[in-house]
Amino acid sequence: MRTLKLVVQYDGTDYVGWQRQPNGTSIQELIERAIEPIEGRQVTVVGAGRTDAGVHALGQVASVQLESSIDPAALARALNATLPEDVRVASVEEAATDFNARFSATGKVYAYRIWTGPFLPPFERRYFWHVPASLDVDRMREAGRALVGTHDFSAFRAAGSDATTSARTIRELQVEFEAERVIVTIAGDGFLRYMVRAIVGTLVEVGQGRRPVEGVAATLASRDRSQAGPTAPAKGLVLVRVKY
Amino acid sequence: MRTLKLVVQYDGTDYVGWQRQPNGTSIQELIERAIEPIEGRQVTVVGAGRTDAGVHALGQVASVQLESSIDPAALARALNATLPEDVRVASVEEAATDFNARFSATGKVYAYRIWTGPFLPPFERRYFWHVPASLDVDRMREAGRALVGTHDFSAFRAAGSDATTSARTIRELQVEFEAERVIVTIAGDGFLRYMVRAIVGTLVEVGQGRRPVEGVAATLASRDRSQAGPTAPAKGLVLVRVKY
Repeated sequence: MRTLKLVVQYDGTDYVGWQRQPNGTSIQELIERAIEPIEGRQVTVVGAGRTDAGVHALGQVASVQLESSIDPAALARALNATLPEDVRVASVEEAATDFNARFSATGKVYAYRIWTGPFLPPFERRYFWHVPASLDVDRMREAGRALVGTHDFSAFRAAGSDATTSARTIRELQVEFEAERVIVTIAGDGFLRYMVRAIVGTLVEVGQGRRPVEGVAATLASRDRSQAGPTAPAKGLVLVRVKY
Repeated sequence: MRTLKLVVQYDGTDYVGWQRQPNGTSIQELIERAIEPIEGRQVTVVGAGRTDAGVHALGQVASVQLESSIDPAALARALNATLPEDVRVASVEEAATDFNARFSATGKVYAYRIWTGPFLPPFERRYFWHVPASLDVDRMREAGRALVGTHDFSAFRAAGSDATTSARTIRELQVEFEAERVIVTIAGDGFLRYMVRAIVGTLVEVGQGRRPVEGVAATLASRDRSQAGPTAPAKGLVLVRVKY
């Protein structure tokens, strides 16, 4: 048995998310189904991050154990020949036998994309949250600083989430803007469900002046989801990179 | 009666093209239908360029004559509230009463986008032609120079096209590349049907070394469509700007 590491890109718009589930098509299922005729048996593909329905990936990482001796580059080509165009295998490489895309990961980088102009261009409609308002990026940056470090992020997690601990570490939080785009990039060792989207929903309220900059530290300390802003829509979120 | 000038952007993937036709939904029809409840009667919207099925626009221009006294910015907002997300009105302004988006146009700029990397990223899949090959951009540029100027472009027109004259003027033809993208930009006073796509299909063969650089001038002079390369797919083509 060999272990392969796949880097996967996808437009999540038309999928139920990374993880296999009964209510629709997942990215995991598509990749497993594409590998199975090559391997000649059922396989399980492990993803680094369980992106939710509608969330995109530029650098999702997946691992799979295969008996097939197919060349990694040939596997990438074969998968791209059968996968739908909104899911692409960017690369395949040999990995250590015990490599596991999920458990070996040491960090992830997400980007959240916001379009602030009066209308959302058609070409960006699937990849940006449209917030037609002027956002004060300096206020967003300042508020974001309170979130960097190791904290209990209960105030920014999905309601009813079942993760056993809600302590996570954010290594870096950047807010950049260029013309009508505001991009929030968050690097961390791991994320609770909806955590990035709840942070972005909160920072946008700060940027609009509807929430005080200094209030974000108090919201974090409250561990109370109802204190934070709304969960930003899935379509603005992209899993950019997984670190090992 | 007043005349309004609209700048329209669209992702043409799911449409039969700009012009109204019985076999599917056109951009023209969508915009007319969106204006009619505001104007209270049927209207005709004139587009500068009849983009074909699957072709996109960043700067299509349309004109319409209205009795309504609605403010231009309010009209843009109202249209964007009812149009589908893949069609956006970027701006509306008052124009001279005799302004006609089609007949007043003095030139158009099209861009054709080619992706040369081994796989087409999911986010670009609707907007690039995937040519997974190394393209010699210098050869493409040199070949393109033969096309600049006023010529009979019969060799680069749609088979069975019924334009009365096939003389057109290309003002500028640029081939740029950045990482895995090659963008061919063509500015001219007007274009025959499929002309840009036939030119791009030909230049790609030159870039791949499958057609001699100097052959393009002879192809142009032949006025014979069968001498030129294939018609590049619609999805790589964008109407960037219309000049008045």
